[in-house]
Amino acid sequence: MAVHLGPNQYGKAENRLVTVSRNGSVHTLRDLTVSTSLRGELAATHLTGDNSGVVPTDTQKNTVYAFAKEAPVGEIEEFALRLGRHFVGSFDQITGARVLVEEHGWGRIPANSHSFVRGSDEKRTTAVTISGTDAWVVSGLRDLVVLKTTGSEFHGYPRDRYTTLPETTDRILATAVSAQWRFAGLDVDWDKSFAEARDALLAAFADTHSLSLQQTLYAMGTAVIEARPEIAEVRLSLPNKHHFVVDLSKFGLANDNEVFYAADRPYGLIEGTVLRDDAPDEGLAWHTLPAF
Amino acid sequence: MAVHLGPNQYGKAENRLVTVSRNGSVHTLRDLTVSTSLRGELAATHLTGDNSGVVPTDTQKNTVYAFAKEAPVGEIEEFALRLGRHFVGSFDQITGARVLVEEHGWGRIPANSHSFVRGSDEKRTTAVTISGTDAWVVSGLRDLVVLKTTGSEFHGYPRDRYTTLPETTDRILATAVSAQWRFAGLDVDWDKSFAEARDALLAAFADTHSLSLQQTLYAMGTAVIEARPEIAEVRLSLPNKHHFVVDLSKFGLANDNEVFYAADRPYGLIEGTVLRDDAPDEGLAWHTLPAF
Amino acid sequence: MAVHLGPNQYGKAENRLVTVSRNGSVHTLRDLTVSTSLRGELAATHLTGDNSGVVPTDTQKNTVYAFAKEAPVGEIEEFALRLGRHFVGSFDQITGARVLVEEHGWGRIPANSHSFVRGSDEKRTTAVTISGTDAWVVSGLRDLVVLKTTGSEFHGYPRDRYTTLPETTDRILATAVSAQWRFAGLDVDWDKSFAEARDALLAAFADTHSLSLQQTLYAMGTAVIEARPEIAEVRLSLPNKHHFVVDLSKFGLANDNEVFYAADRPYGLIEGTVLRDDAPDEGLAWHTLPAF
Amino acid sequence: MAVHLGPNQYGKAENRLVTVSRNGSVHTLRDLTVSTSLRGELAATHLTGDNSGVVPTDTQKNTVYAFAKEAPVGEIEEFALRLGRHFVGSFDQITGARVLVEEHGWGRIPANSHSFVRGSDEKRTTAVTISGTDAWVVSGLRDLVVLKTTGSEFHGYPRDRYTTLPETTDRILATAVSAQWRFAGLDVDWDKSFAEARDALLAAFADTHSLSLQQTLYAMGTAVIEARPEIAEVRLSLPNKHHFVVDLSKFGLANDNEVFYAADRPYGLIEGTVLRDDAPDEGLAWHTLPAF
Repeated sequence: MAVHLGPNQYGKAENRLVTVSRNGSVHTLRDLTVSTSLRGELAATHLTGDNSGVVPTDTQKNTVYAFAKEAPVGEIEEFALRLGRHFVGSFDQITGARVLVEEHGWGRIPANSHSFVRGSDEKRTTAVTISGTDAWVVSGLRDLVVLKTTGSEFHGYPRDRYTTLPETTDRILATAVSAQWRFAGLDVDWDKSFAEARDALLAAFADTHSLSLQQTLYAMGTAVIEARPEIAEVRLSLPNKHHFVVDLSKFGLANDNEVFYAADRPYGLIEGTVLRDDAPDEGLAWHTLPAF
Repeated sequence: MAVHLGPNQYGKAENRLVTVSRNGSVHTLRDLTVSTSLRGELAATHLTGDNSGVVPTDTQKNTVYAFAKEAPVGEIEEFALRLGRHFVGSFDQITGARVLVEEHGWGRIPANSHSFVRGSDEKRTTAVTISGTDAWVVSGLRDLVVLKTTGSEFHGYPRDRYTTLPETTDRILATAVSAQWRFAGLDVDWDKSFAEARDALLAAFADTHSLSLQQTLYAMGTAVIEARPEIAEVRLSLPNKHHFVVDLSKFGLANDNEVFYAADRPYGLIEGTVLRDDAPDEGLAWHTLPAF
Repeated sequence: MAVHLGPNQYGKAENRLVTVSRNGSVHTLRDLTVSTSLRGELAATHLTGDNSGVVPTDTQKNTVYAFAKEAPVGEIEEFALRLGRHFVGSFDQITGARVLVEEHGWGRIPANSHSFVRGSDEKRTTAVTISGTDAWVVSGLRDLVVLKTTGSEFHGYPRDRYTTLPETTDRILATAVSAQWRFAGLDVDWDKSFAEARDALLAAFADTHSLSLQQTLYAMGTAVIEARPEIAEVRLSLPNKHHFVVDLSKFGLANDNEVFYAADRPYGLIEGTVLRDDAPDEGLAWHTLPAF
Repeated sequence: MAVHLGPNQYGKAENRLVTVSRNGSVHTLRDLTVSTSLRGELAATHLTGDNSGVVPTDTQKNTVYAFAKEAPVGEIEEFALRLGRHFVGSFDQITGARVLVEEHGWGRIPANSHSFVRGSDEKRTTAVTISGTDAWVVSGLRDLVVLKTTGSEFHGYPRDRYTTLPETTDRILATAVSAQWRFAGLDVDWDKSFAEARDALLAAFADTHSLSLQQTLYAMGTAVIEARPEIAEVRLSLPNKHHFVVDLSKFGLANDNEVFYAADRPYGLIEGTVLRDDAPDEGLAWHTLPAF
């Protein structure tokens, strides 16, 4: 019986990199989690344990920290591109790379210019794929938790013998946004693009009078593409974080959407893609990334 | 061989309560996690399974939700006091209660007055203890993550054969603040007290030129007591979230406190108490609460 | 500017289903987490909020629980196939489904035949994809944590200016196995297949004298395919859970691979695929599943 | 306004220590998480940042690893006593210590004598307190998850206007046992004591026909004390992990305790103490430990 090696990659995951830069007494803090994966002519190590092509994951880690010193980290997309191109350009047997970067937000404590307070759990993300001299960038965010106390309905759905859900014209809508957007090219003002894409997501969530979370998802993806011409595609994963109206009638109390039980599990999970009509081919942009 | 029942309590933990109140089109969101525990003449259920004194934890849960409708939730200390007094006052065999409330923060999305975005992981907390007609309140916060990029030293410590730590006059200092403060009485403007205690913690963390995290801890506790006369005692648990300067000399690079590795484990853990000199007796305020 | 809807799915995630069946006084416990996702003609809800084709996720949840009663749950692959085919067969606009099931293990407490103790964190998994009348099954396991105290080397790798890792001929090798294997067809003794695939993974991990974790990965995937003819492809994700030999020389102590520090992050991450040479086309088997 | 320092301690938390010992080709694996805290004359560092009495937490960490080499680790209680006594005996200003050790279980993979598979999430624990020449030991376990499919009732409880819970004579009873037991002295066969205490917990859980989880708790604590004369006191924290019978009547289906929904939150939480009648004074055994 014969088997063979299929797609594979290896690297160092979750390197926790914090950098400080100083402009007089004003300090700037960056807090990143960097994961590198390399691809290439790696059959030998799998089949015989010959590691002559295997750049150690320890070396990958060292490179992340050294690169953070050799030049300013810059925008996370730039840093990921720099790392990925280095690996592919420096080792004959490494022909591809995927670099993931998450950035964690901090705010300033007003007392001075070197004290900080951790922000929300939201992460700005990028996933850069390098194959030879080609590069693709998918950026986004995770764990942006949003909630609307009104402006959300759900009705008109098909019913079968297992249907018990009452229709509603007013409910809480809450989700933890995971969004990934693919860029058409690399000539991008990454920070500005991120800020405006994020604003578009928030505004669309808030402004859309929602008849379904799918409708909100589509509006959010559309808003990102309309806001930023360099974005070709948006993929969204939106858990429907259920807030159930507590039945207080047993206690002689009305509950006019005032008191809710926030449930953990199960949760709805709405996932979808919005594409610009003239989006270029995706190439390897999404290779090994989560589907949503 | 003879055994007997010692201290005990029971209740419903982590009731997830979300409330919405409306003032015209302006909605206000509250997001609480409420845990109730009851104490009293409970030997029978332990020894024979006689539940005639056991208010079901399900009833405790229902009461939390019903109380959120019967009157405005108000400040978390008020809500906890109201719940605790109800249980102790309503059932002969229930003579004591502990009610924990955590409040999770949300900010507004500017687009309208009913859309919200989840804030940081920080929680405002209270722990109310009722015994008969007595009541004690311990409030605080958890998971307030702060970091200073300078203004922290550590040296002058004793050395033995296991000591390898180099002394430093400049390091990152980072921690996730858990603070609990005990009130001398119950006549308190809870919201204002919390806001000013939190401000005092942040300012003391930022302003203290730190020779040890213990010194910072003591300064933080002192600042809370100085800021708020109603607070008699502060207990702090401060993990020292190590940020290690990466040794880049192997790569021919200097690293002047610019590039750090943020470690997960192990971590330092500094815990301590600051007391007002004329603090009243603690009574049962801390009974079954974490020591720090 | 024009946009359009791309791939999408929606469903109810993480339905926690526990079932008890009784044979006289002998009880059998099953503990499953079931996630359903539906696909089909779903543009209307995204574009206009018309939900006439949207089987509510609440109905999906009800169906999971009802199906667990209407017939024995059986093997998780059977249960997932039954659920997926039901949704696709019952609603005109639903043309595809993905059903994920995780099974959590319990052992018996010897005292009687109705008491159980939770096993390890390892989960048996399946991911069933239905499209029209076609079906694909990918099964596997997650969080199977294994460790070898010897029989693992790593050397012969390329060096560059960022390389500091010492070569080793004896190290701890530890990983948390995530494995997914694709079946060539549906006529399978699922339980037996799982048991033997798992045995093959464990034996290959233990028996392979490892020159790299990649070599171990390939041996593990090969072993599964050799053990079970119905398996066409195996995808493995193996974090290299580093155990670093602590340098005790500073304290005048040798450390001959006796005392280790188990690190959390970063970790190596080795991911790869082993395919049977005559594996049938994968069709939609992997659609929206994690790459590894 | 005057403040003063109250109780305090500091140390290094969660040192991850793995050791390997070899007897010919048979390897033995130990996997511990060790946390040390020191107490003493520590006002100076709090008040002025004078660290002349502050044994660095980094030194504490080094000591943990060095001690694991200098002599066999042995039973976790012995290792904790050895560490605690070292710190108190070696530094004038350190007059007390608390050492926590958790042990994580591994089983063997049959293929050879150096391969292991991680067991359940259950941890064996100890908390050793040293004050001068005195020592106390509290051992126990955490995350031992158990479930009974029958033999559990709950009825006869008081009712008020908020009571909706139906009485039941047959329900699933499930919990994650956290148990801490205090030893009367130090002359103990720790491993045997642990094994028999754990067996007693499991047997009492399984054998007790439960009219309330409190009754089960008391039976479990009593069983430990009856099984082991060296144990003076047991404290238990038992979350009631609710398994709700799913109402399938809406679908025309009976559900005779066959199909359950396993809920995450809220959960009941039953906590209590069982004491041997002639238990010696607790001294500092529980100082800063969780109440339950």
